[in-house]
Amino acid sequence: MNAPHPAHFESSTSPFPMNRWWIAGFSWELKDKPVARKILGRSLVLFRTPDGQVSALEDRCCHKELPLSLGSIEETGLRCGYHGLLFSHAGACIEIPGQEIIPSKACVRRFPLMERDQVLWVWIGRTASDLPNDEPPHYSFHNDPDFEFGGDCYHYDAPYQLIHDNLMDLSHLGYVHTKTIGGNPKVHMNAKLSVTQEGDQVNVIRLMPGSVPPPTYTAAWPFKGLVDRWQEVEFHVSHVLVWSGAMDQGSGSFDDPHRVGFHMRGFHGVTPETEHSTHYFWTIANNPQPGRDNVTQLVVDQTAATFLEDKHIIEAQWKNQCQFEERSTLSIHVDGGPNRARRVIERLCQEQVTT
Amino acid sequence: MNAPHPAHFESSTSPFPMNRWWIAGFSWELKDKPVARKILGRSLVLFRTPDGQVSALEDRCCHKELPLSLGSIEETGLRCGYHGLLFSHAGACIEIPGQEIIPSKACVRRFPLMERDQVLWVWIGRTASDLPNDEPPHYSFHNDPDFEFGGDCYHYDAPYQLIHDNLMDLSHLGYVHTKTIGGNPKVHMNAKLSVTQEGDQVNVIRLMPGSVPPPTYTAAWPFKGLVDRWQEVEFHVSHVLVWSGAMDQGSGSFDDPHRVGFHMRGFHGVTPETEHSTHYFWTIANNPQPGRDNVTQLVVDQTAATFLEDKHIIEAQWKNQCQFEERSTLSIHVDGGPNRARRVIERLCQEQVTT
Amino acid sequence: MNAPHPAHFESSTSPFPMNRWWIAGFSWELKDKPVARKILGRSLVLFRTPDGQVSALEDRCCHKELPLSLGSIEETGLRCGYHGLLFSHAGACIEIPGQEIIPSKACVRRFPLMERDQVLWVWIGRTASDLPNDEPPHYSFHNDPDFEFGGDCYHYDAPYQLIHDNLMDLSHLGYVHTKTIGGNPKVHMNAKLSVTQEGDQVNVIRLMPGSVPPPTYTAAWPFKGLVDRWQEVEFHVSHVLVWSGAMDQGSGSFDDPHRVGFHMRGFHGVTPETEHSTHYFWTIANNPQPGRDNVTQLVVDQTAATFLEDKHIIEAQWKNQCQFEERSTLSIHVDGGPNRARRVIERLCQEQVTT
Repeated sequence: MNAPHPAHFESSTSPFPMNRWWIAGFSWELKDKPVARKILGRSLVLFRTPDGQVSALEDRCCHKELPLSLGSIEETGLRCGYHGLLFSHAGACIEIPGQEIIPSKACVRRFPLMERDQVLWVWIGRTASDLPNDEPPHYSFHNDPDFEFGGDCYHYDAPYQLIHDNLMDLSHLGYVHTKTIGGNPKVHMNAKLSVTQEGDQVNVIRLMPGSVPPPTYTAAWPFKGLVDRWQEVEFHVSHVLVWSGAMDQGSGSFDDPHRVGFHMRGFHGVTPETEHSTHYFWTIANNPQPGRDNVTQLVVDQTAATFLEDKHIIEAQWKNQCQFEERSTLSIHVDGGPNRARRVIERLCQEQVTT
Repeated sequence: MNAPHPAHFESSTSPFPMNRWWIAGFSWELKDKPVARKILGRSLVLFRTPDGQVSALEDRCCHKELPLSLGSIEETGLRCGYHGLLFSHAGACIEIPGQEIIPSKACVRRFPLMERDQVLWVWIGRTASDLPNDEPPHYSFHNDPDFEFGGDCYHYDAPYQLIHDNLMDLSHLGYVHTKTIGGNPKVHMNAKLSVTQEGDQVNVIRLMPGSVPPPTYTAAWPFKGLVDRWQEVEFHVSHVLVWSGAMDQGSGSFDDPHRVGFHMRGFHGVTPETEHSTHYFWTIANNPQPGRDNVTQLVVDQTAATFLEDKHIIEAQWKNQCQFEERSTLSIHVDGGPNRARRVIERLCQEQVTT
Repeated sequence: MNAPHPAHFESSTSPFPMNRWWIAGFSWELKDKPVARKILGRSLVLFRTPDGQVSALEDRCCHKELPLSLGSIEETGLRCGYHGLLFSHAGACIEIPGQEIIPSKACVRRFPLMERDQVLWVWIGRTASDLPNDEPPHYSFHNDPDFEFGGDCYHYDAPYQLIHDNLMDLSHLGYVHTKTIGGNPKVHMNAKLSVTQEGDQVNVIRLMPGSVPPPTYTAAWPFKGLVDRWQEVEFHVSHVLVWSGAMDQGSGSFDDPHRVGFHMRGFHGVTPETEHSTHYFWTIANNPQPGRDNVTQLVVDQTAATFLEDKHIIEAQWKNQCQFEERSTLSIHVDGGPNRARRVIERLCQEQVTT
């Protein structure tokens, strides 16, 4: 009955699974200015040099500690905005104005950064010598000719696991998102639910045959009446994939991966900024209906509004959790998915404490 | 000579007298939305169902800890805005969407709430089992056909006893409220002063015969010249009543409770929000002069302005007290009333520590 | 190679050299209202009575602790805005409304305040009995008929020594102040540098013969082409004097104190507000070119903009230093002047710990 209180778990010395790839942003963010971003408690500066190369360095000049993100991008690296020290992609100081010798200590820590399908992935090792032994995953819907997408980065004043909870239990749609992707709350709460797990991946499938389509759906697709609606959620430690959609009632099978109808593919990069704040990097891709303009923009706009509703709820929830003393909470039927995801994170954090 | 430093007293483990009725708001605040309000350090949600019943619950859903004040009022109670759990007036969960069994643990703490003469009184017990053995008092001037009134709720970033100090020593009127209810400062400081006590009630009477009436008074009442002015203050632990007014010089006796002239009846609910912040629920009632319109609105507006001046002074005072280290202060003649009130509170707090 | 980390030094019990004159403001700030200002952690109220006398008292009434800076100036002193206690220049209470006897304890601490050449100097002793044994210095350029000046007070969310660092190493001009007084960064970094010390005074001289004059210089003075540019910085514990300027190339000698050309005389009062915040009182004086209007206003405006650039950098630097754990930093060639100044402050602070 009692779920572990979030505050309890966070008192652990390692609140995030380290030594893995986390999402640091999107490709289109790196233009002519460096970007400051704190990831898992580390202050980073992200930048792209004119030759297209991307880099993540500690956001602190080794001379007087000015954030390097206040500096300027040059052909060969990033120059500090105070006394002009120049740093390469690898974090080595390659110029100290006013002196010829560059001491070997003149460098800043570099964090491995990879760009894949417009997602920027950064490796946060427990120490500087913990380096990646794998590559970050691909995400095909950013490169699929049948889909169009848009997205944004939101900042949350709440710990990352509250966002996992939210994404892993979509039963809240009927109460929180009545204006966009909601629908009849009772249908949501009573949806047929399946929760499975493969390693660190948790899958939640919710099927709502014969539903009334919600506002965003009818605006985006010419449904004839009731719909067979699905939500398939894949939890990964660093991100959550949500495949949702609907087809005219009886027009296809939930078992057919190529089924007809309206499809939305949500990408949710949930990256801790600190123990108590989170970056939420999201995109939403949809299969636009031929001959109907602006549907993608509509879907992106309504998704943006929907996610702001979640942010409002989750930040209020966190503020309340901070305010009340550590007390047990009630688990209910729909918490199955979220609780599985929490156990994955908890185990990974404990493993890194003991190793 | 040295008064106890406020900071000293507040380090006590029980900064507020518990197990009593405190003012939580006014009747007119409870409409179609729940109201979040922290009282004596407890976060409450106050609401009224369509049948008129009022209720105060802990403002935290027992499932995921969202403030219930973000939920919505239904016929039978308050529904959480995240996953839709429904709570009765008594705090029992009466519906969990998506599951049939409601565990007995599914409930939130209820705080007794009573509505009397448009004042909402909440009982804050030291524990959930400390329940009221008396009823909150009536306040007749909210229901008196000879009086009209208005009021408001102010929030103070200052501890409640600084507001008691202010109300129990009206000598500050000549320095702080020169534009409204002030008057000659020397007359105020030299007013004939009587301080008496009956149990936990402290009374301060200040009489200023032959005074020049201040701006608010002349705007509200057709005085002929000098006035005999009075201020009678009753300190109760949870609220302070201030009867002030004036009559044409020599036109009546201060001993006559039904004396002629202009009467103002101030109700001041001073309720700690936390140790260092306070709700100030006030109304001002006056006997409107026949044939003169808008006098009540004028009195309410000028009272509102006057109380904002107090708020400005008291918040600056508190900020300064926090800034300076614990140091003795000087007590002067006019502190007699405030010091008595402080001793009442101090005794009540100490009694609850030892019991 | 490793400079002491600022955070380390600040953990000392005496972060500021006491028992000396510090700058508290400028004469023109004291008009008909008292001014609240925290200096070296002490909250002061500064005021001038109608007879012209200036005074600095502790900003706390000894009765109810209201800041005296919320009071009003009278002929003989400062009256508290709550209950009207009146304090003389010396901090003695000279009137308590409503009572005849004034206890000897009724007083507030006075801090010696002197006004010299439009600068207000306050003596902050370690205890109330540590009184001045010298007088604050004169500053001639506020009274020199050949110069005009303007200035302002800036507030920094950063400790005072970061401002010393900035003023003692002007090599940053080429990176930070490109729009006003900057110039070719390489010329700045490679300027001929001399650092000398006389007691607690540190001098940095930087000479840049044959430079391209920067925007502010060409706007203010009719240079013919390249210039011989100088910067002479005098560090004193409480303030820094910066003499900068330029003359047409080859038109005079850097050794001649009366050399021709454009001269700017900067006065920089760097006064700790707290350990982590600073008042920056600055004026800039220049020798206006005959027949050219508004040059002084232009110089003041561009200096104001320049100093805001410094504030932006230094506050970002401090925020970053707070964020990163205590780590060694790299010293480079141009740090010679700043490091000498830091050693002076460090020695003075240590001396006062042991005495």
